[in-house]
Amino acid sequence: MTESIGFIGLGNMGHPMAINVLKAGYNMKVYNRDLSKTEKIVEAGAKRGIRPDDVVERGGIAVSMLANDEALEAVTLGHDGLLSRLGPGGVHVSMSTVSPALAHKMHELHEKEGCSYVAAPVFGRPEAAAAQQLWIVEAGNAAAKERVRPVLEAMGQGIFDFGEDPSHANIVKISGNFLIASAMESMGEIFTLAEKNGIDRTQVFNMLTQTIFGSPIYKNYGQKIAEKNFQPVGFPIQLALKDINLVLDAAEQARMPMPFASQLHDRLLSGIAKGRGENDWAELTRGIEDEAGIE
Amino acid sequence: MTESIGFIGLGNMGHPMAINVLKAGYNMKVYNRDLSKTEKIVEAGAKRGIRPDDVVERGGIAVSMLANDEALEAVTLGHDGLLSRLGPGGVHVSMSTVSPALAHKMHELHEKEGCSYVAAPVFGRPEAAAAQQLWIVEAGNAAAKERVRPVLEAMGQGIFDFGEDPSHANIVKISGNFLIASAMESMGEIFTLAEKNGIDRTQVFNMLTQTIFGSPIYKNYGQKIAEKNFQPVGFPIQLALKDINLVLDAAEQARMPMPFASQLHDRLLSGIAKGRGENDWAELTRGIEDEAGIE
Amino acid sequence: MTESIGFIGLGNMGHPMAINVLKAGYNMKVYNRDLSKTEKIVEAGAKRGIRPDDVVERGGIAVSMLANDEALEAVTLGHDGLLSRLGPGGVHVSMSTVSPALAHKMHELHEKEGCSYVAAPVFGRPEAAAAQQLWIVEAGNAAAKERVRPVLEAMGQGIFDFGEDPSHANIVKISGNFLIASAMESMGEIFTLAEKNGIDRTQVFNMLTQTIFGSPIYKNYGQKIAEKNFQPVGFPIQLALKDINLVLDAAEQARMPMPFASQLHDRLLSGIAKGRGENDWAELTRGIEDEAGIE
Amino acid sequence: MTESIGFIGLGNMGHPMAINVLKAGYNMKVYNRDLSKTEKIVEAGAKRGIRPDDVVERGGIAVSMLANDEALEAVTLGHDGLLSRLGPGGVHVSMSTVSPALAHKMHELHEKEGCSYVAAPVFGRPEAAAAQQLWIVEAGNAAAKERVRPVLEAMGQGIFDFGEDPSHANIVKISGNFLIASAMESMGEIFTLAEKNGIDRTQVFNMLTQTIFGSPIYKNYGQKIAEKNFQPVGFPIQLALKDINLVLDAAEQARMPMPFASQLHDRLLSGIAKGRGENDWAELTRGIEDEAGIE
Repeated sequence: MTESIGFIGLGNMGHPMAINVLKAGYNMKVYNRDLSKTEKIVEAGAKRGIRPDDVVERGGIAVSMLANDEALEAVTLGHDGLLSRLGPGGVHVSMSTVSPALAHKMHELHEKEGCSYVAAPVFGRPEAAAAQQLWIVEAGNAAAKERVRPVLEAMGQGIFDFGEDPSHANIVKISGNFLIASAMESMGEIFTLAEKNGIDRTQVFNMLTQTIFGSPIYKNYGQKIAEKNFQPVGFPIQLALKDINLVLDAAEQARMPMPFASQLHDRLLSGIAKGRGENDWAELTRGIEDEAGIE
Repeated sequence: MTESIGFIGLGNMGHPMAINVLKAGYNMKVYNRDLSKTEKIVEAGAKRGIRPDDVVERGGIAVSMLANDEALEAVTLGHDGLLSRLGPGGVHVSMSTVSPALAHKMHELHEKEGCSYVAAPVFGRPEAAAAQQLWIVEAGNAAAKERVRPVLEAMGQGIFDFGEDPSHANIVKISGNFLIASAMESMGEIFTLAEKNGIDRTQVFNMLTQTIFGSPIYKNYGQKIAEKNFQPVGFPIQLALKDINLVLDAAEQARMPMPFASQLHDRLLSGIAKGRGENDWAELTRGIEDEAGIE
Repeated sequence: MTESIGFIGLGNMGHPMAINVLKAGYNMKVYNRDLSKTEKIVEAGAKRGIRPDDVVERGGIAVSMLANDEALEAVTLGHDGLLSRLGPGGVHVSMSTVSPALAHKMHELHEKEGCSYVAAPVFGRPEAAAAQQLWIVEAGNAAAKERVRPVLEAMGQGIFDFGEDPSHANIVKISGNFLIASAMESMGEIFTLAEKNGIDRTQVFNMLTQTIFGSPIYKNYGQKIAEKNFQPVGFPIQLALKDINLVLDAAEQARMPMPFASQLHDRLLSGIAKGRGENDWAELTRGIEDEAGIE
Repeated sequence: MTESIGFIGLGNMGHPMAINVLKAGYNMKVYNRDLSKTEKIVEAGAKRGIRPDDVVERGGIAVSMLANDEALEAVTLGHDGLLSRLGPGGVHVSMSTVSPALAHKMHELHEKEGCSYVAAPVFGRPEAAAAQQLWIVEAGNAAAKERVRPVLEAMGQGIFDFGEDPSHANIVKISGNFLIASAMESMGEIFTLAEKNGIDRTQVFNMLTQTIFGSPIYKNYGQKIAEKNFQPVGFPIQLALKDINLVLDAAEQARMPMPFASQLHDRLLSGIAKGRGENDWAELTRGIEDEAGIE
């Protein structure tokens, strides 16, 4: 018998992800705070709920993909939250980029209800989600992970398992975002050094990414930074600051300084102060130029 | 008629590079301060000189591969320096990682003598040099570059041209080293964050390098850092500090802060203070653990 | 008629402050979570309450001196909190070092009940409190401040007014703590530079504090740091980190980087990671020596 | 018999210092590269030399007050340098802010000639020099220091001795300048935090300098920074960067990171990049506002 999936959160990422699950043959009931965003997927065959607990079956599978800690708490807890319905045997696959601390708290609250919280945050932009090319990092109860594996496979090109503690998947996820931002800052510094010396930024970019730095991150973000072309906005500076703050909070809990993260924090925060909060996070590198006196 | 090459500097890098030039069919005369290091290449067919100017022909090609600014000045300038012999039409291919400022000065001194200074620093470890797999960054007089191109091709897998100003090649080279060190620091920070949270460092390494950070730098250095296995020493911390100082000097000349470079400077300097100056530069990441209270 | 004061919080700071208010002739009722700490002041003439709301009169004056945000919320809000009793016309003089955000929230909650929240954090150690030598920074409703001024005068040697918004007093207070920590870090850096060059740390300290840096902060903390003598513990590293985090949170709200504060954060956090969390905050400077390879 | 003094360097600082020595009754012969600056002191009774070695007597006392390492080397070494004349028994009192490394080199060169190099850099602005209110930090040969003590007393209000190694005095001097710049950055950060929260900068300045930060440095520079009034220029940003670079060089030699110094370096360097190199060093704090998005 086919599993039924309750899918919550149909934003830029959640929508294509849900479509892929639907295409894989699952019955699906969807919830989104802004109901208008559910039209397309309902046409494609999903049913619509009007509250989070509407879309979940007792002992079933819920998948959520939301913007931040607050949104995840809102759809999960409270009188019409999905947790009130999920019950014994149920599995909540939480794919949002949230704090490790919230993952931990959710884990405990789900256990209390006899169900499982599987953290499964993803790497990839909306295009990758549409193409079923996400990379998924999962952690949680082993049996629950096995049960939901086909669902995850419908959304990604690869799944990396980090054990039973859901917060571990979130630590890995935010670590990856930090690594991307670090690569951007370091490219920004050398492209600016090149520019100030009369060397073409793009030529430096080409050389490095055709040789020892040929990974997608360096190629994709490096080009934007080399060319100072930050359109379209994939991920805004203010969300990037949120993620770097999650990293710094985790480092604070773990009792360790992360000086590159602190530097990125200041770079992003200053970007917001200068009115660039809605711009793409690659534009954090404009702060390097400001400090160098480039107009 | 085959060109004759005067090759100066037969260290860990210079030796395999010279061997490859010799294999390509050039006549070669070599000089090294420590004469004992010339034995093997003399057996392979090179002639030996006992002073730098010994190995150079008027109007010929000299190739140098040395440890730092001081060494390059020593073999080039002065009464027995190669510049005293090279003369009109000659080309000095300088492959060492030296300061952009010295490249600029050398350029002017060579021009005065009617010869050309082509900067051609390389990316790659000794194994890559032996395998003819270096990446070469060149800049200098166009005709001179054309003349020496087959020599460079005998040593590397690819050549990237950065125009007529030799110092530009050196800026790009030291920028690359900075980019590598930044990647190491950022990996070190997240692997330590993982460790302090009970997550396996190597598992995080595997996930990232199998997905969005799959370039050689992340794979090779990342593995050392994840496993805390810093043997053998490829490039020692004290030479890495020298290169980061070259970057910071160039940034000072260009009037721009480079906060990641400043952070790396402090990390490397502290490593030396703690007695790790001879260790591999990947071990800069041990400073992260020290600050985190990991024994 | 003499005002009656409800005094809440009799720790190292609160106790001598309350004693001074009592000596000034006020009727006083005291509350402390650990009742044993109230004995001495009860002998001196105060009455004891067993709940926060016990010690407050409707329309009266409450003074609180507590460790952190959580403690202030605990005694103020909730069913037995002082706010439940204080009522119209009452004034709550909050002298704790708490977050500007909490001050703001308290201000609104008190206004709703028709009473006033006056923030009045202090500068000074327990000895200064005992000697009536505190410096007090106040902000809040003008009439309320005028009413409680004699009470404040009984505790300090000077009062600085920062207007009607209570959170402003807290911003100034935590700014002062940041300024002290910055002075300590900068002294630590030069004393270590002196030491590594064979110059006597104390001699450098003497010279600077006898000339251009002759203020109490430089004299008192500088001596501890120069002599590496951090006993007794006046203010522990972990509370200092709490205060620097309050500064960084305020800077985040205000959208501005504070690089010195970020550096101090890392220094203090690393101190805790190394097991020094209970030590005096002047010991943050030991991190400088660690990085310099001094055992 | 009265000693004869050869005084070299009559800039903003050197001129009032020389005047005070002359007033104390010494015979004086002066040299300044720009001869026009010697007119006033010649009217006051000094004799004029046209080369550095002109003004020095064999076995006599030379005093120099110059802008930087290069200037000190120029007047001391070379065929018409003072060292060529000074000879056995002579004393060179070097009051410039130069690098510890140069002090060390000068010490050795003077010893070779049988004379003494006494480093005696000063704290104080031109007004303080005129008022005989400088603070002097000295180090060098004991007998030489005793001989020149009355000369130093004619220029300052206090002398602090740091032993026999002249470079120690220079380390202390540049450490003092670093401490001043640190105080400025930290004040700049909190005044900006105040401003962004609607709190008056000057009120915060008043409170802090009337209580726990009442030293001249905080009062004088703090007022400029609080009021954003950076006129007149006492000490320009580019000279401040020179001094911070001397500190960082000394720290590099000593093998220790100085993170506050690195941060100040970037602040000053960015100030120059933005066209503020000739402005007063207190204006380094404008960088804080730039990053905070304040126009």
